[in-house]
Amino acid sequence: MSEVIDYINSNQEWANKELFELLRIPSISTQVEHAGDLRRAGQWIQSRLSQMGLAAEIIETEKHPIVFAQSKEQPGKATVLIYGHYDVQPPDPLDEWHSDPFEPSVRNGTIFARGASDDKGQLMCHVAAVQAWMATKGELPVNVKFLVEGEEEISGDSLDKFVRSNKERLAADYVVVSDSSQLGPGAPAITYGLRGMVYMEVIISGPSHDLHSGGYGGAVVNPANVLSKLISGLHDEQGHVMLEGFYEEVKPIPEEEREALAQLGCEDDKVKKMIGVQALGGEEGYSNRERMWARPTLDVNGMMAGYIEPGAKTIIPAKASAKISMRLVNNQNPGAIAESFKKYFREEAGAGVRVEFIEHGVAKAVLVEKTEPGVQAAKRAMEKGFSAPASFVRSGGSIPIVSLLGELISPQILLMGFAMPDDNAHGPNENFRLKDYHNGQLASAYLLGELGGVET
Amino acid sequence: MSEVIDYINSNQEWANKELFELLRIPSISTQVEHAGDLRRAGQWIQSRLSQMGLAAEIIETEKHPIVFAQSKEQPGKATVLIYGHYDVQPPDPLDEWHSDPFEPSVRNGTIFARGASDDKGQLMCHVAAVQAWMATKGELPVNVKFLVEGEEEISGDSLDKFVRSNKERLAADYVVVSDSSQLGPGAPAITYGLRGMVYMEVIISGPSHDLHSGGYGGAVVNPANVLSKLISGLHDEQGHVMLEGFYEEVKPIPEEEREALAQLGCEDDKVKKMIGVQALGGEEGYSNRERMWARPTLDVNGMMAGYIEPGAKTIIPAKASAKISMRLVNNQNPGAIAESFKKYFREEAGAGVRVEFIEHGVAKAVLVEKTEPGVQAAKRAMEKGFSAPASFVRSGGSIPIVSLLGELISPQILLMGFAMPDDNAHGPNENFRLKDYHNGQLASAYLLGELGGVET
Repeated sequence: MSEVIDYINSNQEWANKELFELLRIPSISTQVEHAGDLRRAGQWIQSRLSQMGLAAEIIETEKHPIVFAQSKEQPGKATVLIYGHYDVQPPDPLDEWHSDPFEPSVRNGTIFARGASDDKGQLMCHVAAVQAWMATKGELPVNVKFLVEGEEEISGDSLDKFVRSNKERLAADYVVVSDSSQLGPGAPAITYGLRGMVYMEVIISGPSHDLHSGGYGGAVVNPANVLSKLISGLHDEQGHVMLEGFYEEVKPIPEEEREALAQLGCEDDKVKKMIGVQALGGEEGYSNRERMWARPTLDVNGMMAGYIEPGAKTIIPAKASAKISMRLVNNQNPGAIAESFKKYFREEAGAGVRVEFIEHGVAKAVLVEKTEPGVQAAKRAMEKGFSAPASFVRSGGSIPIVSLLGELISPQILLMGFAMPDDNAHGPNENFRLKDYHNGQLASAYLLGELGGVET
Repeated sequence: MSEVIDYINSNQEWANKELFELLRIPSISTQVEHAGDLRRAGQWIQSRLSQMGLAAEIIETEKHPIVFAQSKEQPGKATVLIYGHYDVQPPDPLDEWHSDPFEPSVRNGTIFARGASDDKGQLMCHVAAVQAWMATKGELPVNVKFLVEGEEEISGDSLDKFVRSNKERLAADYVVVSDSSQLGPGAPAITYGLRGMVYMEVIISGPSHDLHSGGYGGAVVNPANVLSKLISGLHDEQGHVMLEGFYEEVKPIPEEEREALAQLGCEDDKVKKMIGVQALGGEEGYSNRERMWARPTLDVNGMMAGYIEPGAKTIIPAKASAKISMRLVNNQNPGAIAESFKKYFREEAGAGVRVEFIEHGVAKAVLVEKTEPGVQAAKRAMEKGFSAPASFVRSGGSIPIVSLLGELISPQILLMGFAMPDDNAHGPNENFRLKDYHNGQLASAYLLGELGGVET
């Protein structure tokens, strides 16, 4: 094992160079003009996995390609399926970045770039670990499969289809996912829960064109006012989501878990400082950690109506729209919640406007059993890689495919998050600490050893 | 008089050419990059008025220049001050125009261009009428002063300052304003009421940057949700505006006037068809005409938060903003209402967000006495110019300077609107019928005759 570790420690310059190459590809899945960049990113990963001896191929889909790779089969050894995604969120607001989002910049030991932590940096930890095993031992202690998609950030369904029709090829004893974060600096963690998601866009249309607000103001139903009223009605004063049936499948957080979450320490003041607010908010009766990790929620992600340039324009807008996402827990059914969302808007919009929807994708929530041997092995690997005791945490985020992988491939989902909670994933100045990138590679190498029965 | 009328009738080609030249100048006052175009439009008008023998000058201001011109003083004759504005609204949404907004296109006898009706086309009616009098008689039947500004659409205060400090120069017996509309095709009208305005922009700021909605959703106060709730609270279920003191100075519409407005005929179905909606809305207990003309109102003109590009981005936006305008009637005090607006947002926003404002300008409402001799002369001139009986109407729109002109120059404000109610002023495909442009020139020529005691 020590040779593998030494190899990683001596090859950080190479590992950084490799990651930076991948970060320079603007693989923004939500913007069609970047389709070529997504293909380029997928091909880059496929070529790297090929070079280190895996059978790696590009799987064509209706949208962005999937990369699937497997090491030479060694019968009798356990199989590990490593999931990751090469697509990234749009970089805007661009003017808040301190450096080019697609030209990695290292400042104070931290890499700044779109995708640095979500998810290119975390995926590359596993690539570098496999490289270290292959370079030093010529073989891996387990059978390894890589499954890397390009539609995670758009909740695309290409991977879903591929997984459903390729259960045998993907068969594995463990599924490894590194797309979440540690508890904080020096506090590694295993994630045992992910929230699900429903992401809807609602468009309220009124007049066939923008109207002069002097001429018509007061007699025409204003789509922007209607949208505001409808969004306002989605929460009550205590912060509960008011959609019919929203809480039907939501179970109370077990007392034991509430205690465990409380023992992670109250970091409210740190969070406030980190994000620059005077006060936090949310559903009454829950701690902030519970609100972020273990309770369902609804947020406006974007909203637009009428004149949004500088200055004033006196119009009644022809339409108003909002992008709204809901995070789910337990067995909340994304499809049923999407229907309830549509029903609410259709029924409450009133006369004088029309309502349309765009569905941007759904994901079920995930909860992993902490006592599973794979989960325990992952915890030990994190502790060795990061030289510190690891906690069990949940994540408020969603990784759409994980629920399906748990159902069809293996319930032993090992969620090893290498990033920091304040990594600004999805925001400006997304970052990943060089130290975490390095330790993530070590943790991945230890994990392969642990799962292969190697003394680590 | 017939010579003047004949001159106008024979010179429509010239009048169109002149107007089209002015329409080609994109004098968008709300966008700083068009400052040069505003100057160009002002200079164009100044040069035309000079050419026809008026002493015309450009008055520099802190923003866009004012054009002031006067005919050679003829003692003992009445003086008429003609107000207009050469600035226009932004043309967006650009993709809804059927022709270039700044390249006039004539289709089915109608001119399509930004500013065609608001206000370049209407202003040019008076310019052409003065030209006709000068060309045929060598002098005017009254003393004429032109006052043309470039900040009407931004409620700028340059003209306000100029009027306050130049009362003597501007002195007049009548003020003529053509920046409103007729009742409909074949139904000319004199406008006796204009609504006032307060236009505010409110910015709700939360986190210092956009946050990942997975990581933080549920525990962070979302500025877009807060903004929606606050906008929603601005109206009750009956459509009343809920700002403190909003209705304090609002008087009931006199019964006699309600009857007169009702007698103009109910055009709700026509309005619905014209703007493409199934139902109208607004304050309970009032007809649509009363809502549009004689009741105060509040509308969102623009709204923006977070991610507004196509597709999905899972963020909690750092800020959300709305442009909101209120139309005022009677003695509603714009300053007091602006304060009440700010107080509401500040007090109701709650913890976790900050609130800021941009004030985009104010205007007081105007009501003119229908029995004034100048108003009666204007009615006769409209009837002759348009060959049809004229009604008395109100306008839901605002012309910021008119209230001050009524107070400092003359209470005889003659609001002669030449445009159509469906002229799409401020929207895409703004238009002005060639016939109305022609008849407007005739009406203006008759008005000068009427006010000068010429037999018309």
